[in-house]
Amino acid sequence: VLASDASRRATKPAAGPAAPTDAAGSAQRPLPADGLRLTAGLLHDWQHRNASASMPLALRQLEVAGNLDNLRLAIGVAADGDGHADAAAGDVDGEAYHGPAFMDSDIYKTLEAIGWELAHGDRPEFVEFAARTIGLLERAQQPDGYLNSYVQATRTPRYANLARSHEMYCAGHLIQAAIALHRCTGAPLAESGRLLAIATRFADHLVREFSGQEKGIDGHPIIETALVELYRETGTGTYLNLARQFVDQRGHGLVGDSGLGRRYLQDHLPIRETDTEVGHVVRALYLEAGVTDVATETRDDELLQSSITRWADMVATKTYLTGGNGSRHVDEGFGDRFELPPDRAYNETCAAIASFQWSWRLLLATGDAKYADHMERVLYNGFAEAIAAGGDRFFYVNPLQRRADHFEKDDPGRRREWFSCACCPPNAMRLMASLERYLATATDDTLYLHQYTGAELTGANLAVSITTDYPWSGQVTLRVLAAPSAPRVLAFRIPAWSASSSFKINNSAEQAVVPQHGYLLVHQQWRPGDEITLHLDMTPRWTYPDRRVDAVHGCAAIERGPLVYCFEQVDQLVPLDELAVRPGVRLAEREVTLDGIGRTIQVSVAARHVPPPPEQPVPRVSAVAIPYFHWDNRGPGAMRVWIPGA
Amino acid sequence: VLASDASRRATKPAAGPAAPTDAAGSAQRPLPADGLRLTAGLLHDWQHRNASASMPLALRQLEVAGNLDNLRLAIGVAADGDGHADAAAGDVDGEAYHGPAFMDSDIYKTLEAIGWELAHGDRPEFVEFAARTIGLLERAQQPDGYLNSYVQATRTPRYANLARSHEMYCAGHLIQAAIALHRCTGAPLAESGRLLAIATRFADHLVREFSGQEKGIDGHPIIETALVELYRETGTGTYLNLARQFVDQRGHGLVGDSGLGRRYLQDHLPIRETDTEVGHVVRALYLEAGVTDVATETRDDELLQSSITRWADMVATKTYLTGGNGSRHVDEGFGDRFELPPDRAYNETCAAIASFQWSWRLLLATGDAKYADHMERVLYNGFAEAIAAGGDRFFYVNPLQRRADHFEKDDPGRRREWFSCACCPPNAMRLMASLERYLATATDDTLYLHQYTGAELTGANLAVSITTDYPWSGQVTLRVLAAPSAPRVLAFRIPAWSASSSFKINNSAEQAVVPQHGYLLVHQQWRPGDEITLHLDMTPRWTYPDRRVDAVHGCAAIERGPLVYCFEQVDQLVPLDELAVRPGVRLAEREVTLDGIGRTIQVSVAARHVPPPPEQPVPRVSAVAIPYFHWDNRGPGAMRVWIPGA
Repeated sequence: VLASDASRRATKPAAGPAAPTDAAGSAQRPLPADGLRLTAGLLHDWQHRNASASMPLALRQLEVAGNLDNLRLAIGVAADGDGHADAAAGDVDGEAYHGPAFMDSDIYKTLEAIGWELAHGDRPEFVEFAARTIGLLERAQQPDGYLNSYVQATRTPRYANLARSHEMYCAGHLIQAAIALHRCTGAPLAESGRLLAIATRFADHLVREFSGQEKGIDGHPIIETALVELYRETGTGTYLNLARQFVDQRGHGLVGDSGLGRRYLQDHLPIRETDTEVGHVVRALYLEAGVTDVATETRDDELLQSSITRWADMVATKTYLTGGNGSRHVDEGFGDRFELPPDRAYNETCAAIASFQWSWRLLLATGDAKYADHMERVLYNGFAEAIAAGGDRFFYVNPLQRRADHFEKDDPGRRREWFSCACCPPNAMRLMASLERYLATATDDTLYLHQYTGAELTGANLAVSITTDYPWSGQVTLRVLAAPSAPRVLAFRIPAWSASSSFKINNSAEQAVVPQHGYLLVHQQWRPGDEITLHLDMTPRWTYPDRRVDAVHGCAAIERGPLVYCFEQVDQLVPLDELAVRPGVRLAEREVTLDGIGRTIQVSVAARHVPPPPEQPVPRVSAVAIPYFHWDNRGPGAMRVWIPGA
Repeated sequence: VLASDASRRATKPAAGPAAPTDAAGSAQRPLPADGLRLTAGLLHDWQHRNASASMPLALRQLEVAGNLDNLRLAIGVAADGDGHADAAAGDVDGEAYHGPAFMDSDIYKTLEAIGWELAHGDRPEFVEFAARTIGLLERAQQPDGYLNSYVQATRTPRYANLARSHEMYCAGHLIQAAIALHRCTGAPLAESGRLLAIATRFADHLVREFSGQEKGIDGHPIIETALVELYRETGTGTYLNLARQFVDQRGHGLVGDSGLGRRYLQDHLPIRETDTEVGHVVRALYLEAGVTDVATETRDDELLQSSITRWADMVATKTYLTGGNGSRHVDEGFGDRFELPPDRAYNETCAAIASFQWSWRLLLATGDAKYADHMERVLYNGFAEAIAAGGDRFFYVNPLQRRADHFEKDDPGRRREWFSCACCPPNAMRLMASLERYLATATDDTLYLHQYTGAELTGANLAVSITTDYPWSGQVTLRVLAAPSAPRVLAFRIPAWSASSSFKINNSAEQAVVPQHGYLLVHQQWRPGDEITLHLDMTPRWTYPDRRVDAVHGCAAIERGPLVYCFEQVDQLVPLDELAVRPGVRLAEREVTLDGIGRTIQVSVAARHVPPPPEQPVPRVSAVAIPYFHWDNRGPGAMRVWIPGA
């Protein structure tokens, strides 16, 4: 059944994540896999930190937390055969399954991160881990292609409780890991083909079990986008068909009962009939990635338009300034429109990743710069903030305010190394390892630059280098390294936040940017050595909330370039919750190096100290803000993004 | 072991709930049971509605939901003996235990409501239900006194999981029901003594199992206050000792693990070392009722002072304007200080009841009018609002704001007849049925009037009648019906919200009230026919939040007398969330009769319509508010207590 994809890859090495086929209705395409490299700057440093600090932690934790033992347990059960069916569930040969039912997915996310990371160069410990783990997976996989350590180790019936079991969720992450390893051109990993074979065997099994059936769909989406990507990687159309089927079947009660209702599972209405995001955020947004992928590959404009409509509604009414999503702890869910409490924001790290991935797919489908704008907001704020400066601790929940005496149950709410539900850390790792793949896109005659950082990029037959100190500086210099003989368009995204932007080409005079649909378009015959310098406006600015967001009524926030700022107690002279500002007053910036953070740019503002009565307000104190993604790196204490007006 | 209490009751019929012994360190005492009667007005009507609409609903629901079947199941299991121990847990003889582990408590709360209600006159259907149910309880109780349908029907080991099992929680409600029926003087219920015997057998069992041991304490308090009350009713000191032991043992990890942490269970620190309420609100506040009871009966001033300190902190930093408590859905819990989101307020109905009961005990202990002030706030707002105008539907969660498109999981958040966790409706019924018992207190020479409503009261050898249209009117007339030959003090609570209060005695001139510690004290020789008329200030007023409550920064609310007001969409000309006001402008009131609500007083205010951009604000519209407790009786729609400043 497997299409031979070797020939496809020789002619069209896809970068991915999300690499639409030539037949897809995509406005823009990812750059080829060998046309992307981070060379310097913040994103480069983050990616390096990911490989040197975060990923080694994951490799350890997968042993400590028992994820790999679960696979070994499943192998043991398979070896026992049916003769030992009397073993109690979850307790086989004196060992017990560890953790939640979706522990396999943490392994797959880590393998996916290894796949993307190996594109940057050899890492023997990652190769060794991947080879060893792929060996375990091969042994654990059942003859018909099924693979799930929880179901196998605890002898739970397959697909008996799809609302909770995460069986296809784990399959989806397996497929994504296999594709990442497989796309990792030049990786010294002979096993990458073996992992793809495991994934396709599982996918083929899913096709046999579910294709054309109404047997159920998984309570936690991701299989949809994974199957489309597997179709893209292998050319096997049945995977696309099954993804489309799962998308269309949602909303008819096929998922079952999770105990938290049908909205929680996005199973309350057919997807084409919904106009707003509801329920569990990560589920909703992974589903949207799949919806967009299916719509793009099947050229289903109605389906694509429904996703676009919900994206616009989500960004306008259910998204935090940091790009985060999720207003409720109780179901890790979306709230009502404009229900965006900063202190009780859930903003799961995985939700930021899912949102980033969905926006990327809409960017490819439509070419609309607003999706890249939003990706930038998510990347530098809601996502980046989840990871400690050292790369070794993570937030699961990412609020915009924390009080000094904060407790969530018994947890003071600081970053942690790992979690009993450890979905977020390895998810962050797979995005960090693939970061360069989201920088730019191309059409036949245009190279689109979406995210600015030190990089070398190739697209539309143009090779360019980017030099910049972004996001600290708004100056971005593009140098043409190689160019075809025909004219090409260089398209620079002009962020909506840049109040005044200018550029110059080589030694020409500086000109004001007049964006067209969010881009500066420069169309000409390029020569190696040509330079374009873009200036974006990094002046710190006040941001005011939509007045329908009750929770921050009368407050304002500070942003600088793509960075949302926050006030941390450690930088203030008075209690943080007794500070008030007059929004609109001048903001002063200062580059500093702070212990625990390193280099950053502080913004300070004249403020008032408003102590509780009977004390009198003090007209003038100075309040100091740092980038939101830098908070909680200097000990505990209060933090807030939105600050009340005096 | 049972002290003979017949003689005690003959000389000192205690009203309760919470009837301190003569030995207790109480500043004030409840009035005698036969010295309290509601005669007319809102509280009288609520109590009548409770008996005619709410309680009959409970009697039906306890059959429909399976609470009584659970008792029958436990009886069946007991009859089976140990020979059938192979029956699967929760499925005995083809029947299964219904609902959560604490289903018995709903039965006990209903019996308690019946106890208080029978003091108002004969209700044959309640007598019949109580007699029948007491018969079931007698048969279900095990020979050693243990009684719990969940543990017995599902053959769960006793006390094996006290963090979750609610075994002593159910025992506490059993004891409270037995006491209510027993205190119900003149009740035509021969069985009341039998229920007290069941309760004391269980209490004696608890004493044998736990007294002097470190075997564990219940994850859900109420046994503490119940045991003190049983001591008060029976004179058996071991009950008081066990209550004190449970209070002192908390904070040492004896409760076990509920999965939500030790703060959730108030087991994170010894109670004397805590200065703020944390964790599950109902648990915390039932515990405080027990703490206050123990401290009062043992004259433990340090313990009492710790409860007073936490009460003050709670009211200042963790209480909603409506008197509600609970800022978080995820654990039905307290939030951080000043974390009081109006839309995500949890404010469980049971929490309002628990808060009312704790404040009552602190009022008795200290005589401080602020506790009665707070009881009034809770009674007329957070508690009253939980019950539909018809008495037949209930809120479990009581927010201060609801958006038009609200969903909580799949629930649009309106009142419901019953709940799968049905703790709130029968809890509301037991408070409604005993409402007159919280109106007044006495010392030897003073009759304290705390809540104003049409009533006849006897205390300090004074018999008085109260005539008033409170809370609609601020005029309260007290007429002396009988008086002793010695002078007596009449003490009228002057609510903190009454900006200017006056009174006159018989035909004297009107005088301004000069409150002493929150009371108007009138000390003289009284004669039958003497009248005091009190005028409290019912002018509608603006209320501003503490500026540390971020969630309502820049907003204001309207109150009138003891009533918090709210804006419901149905009364507005424009979308509710697009209204803004200038706090401080004149408020106009108007008495109206509304479908679904009946008689009420509306308050209207000039407002602005602020539509989302690009529309322009409209300077003048009128916004109309109604009492918060009246909302959600006229169909769905948005509601808010706090309204933003223009």
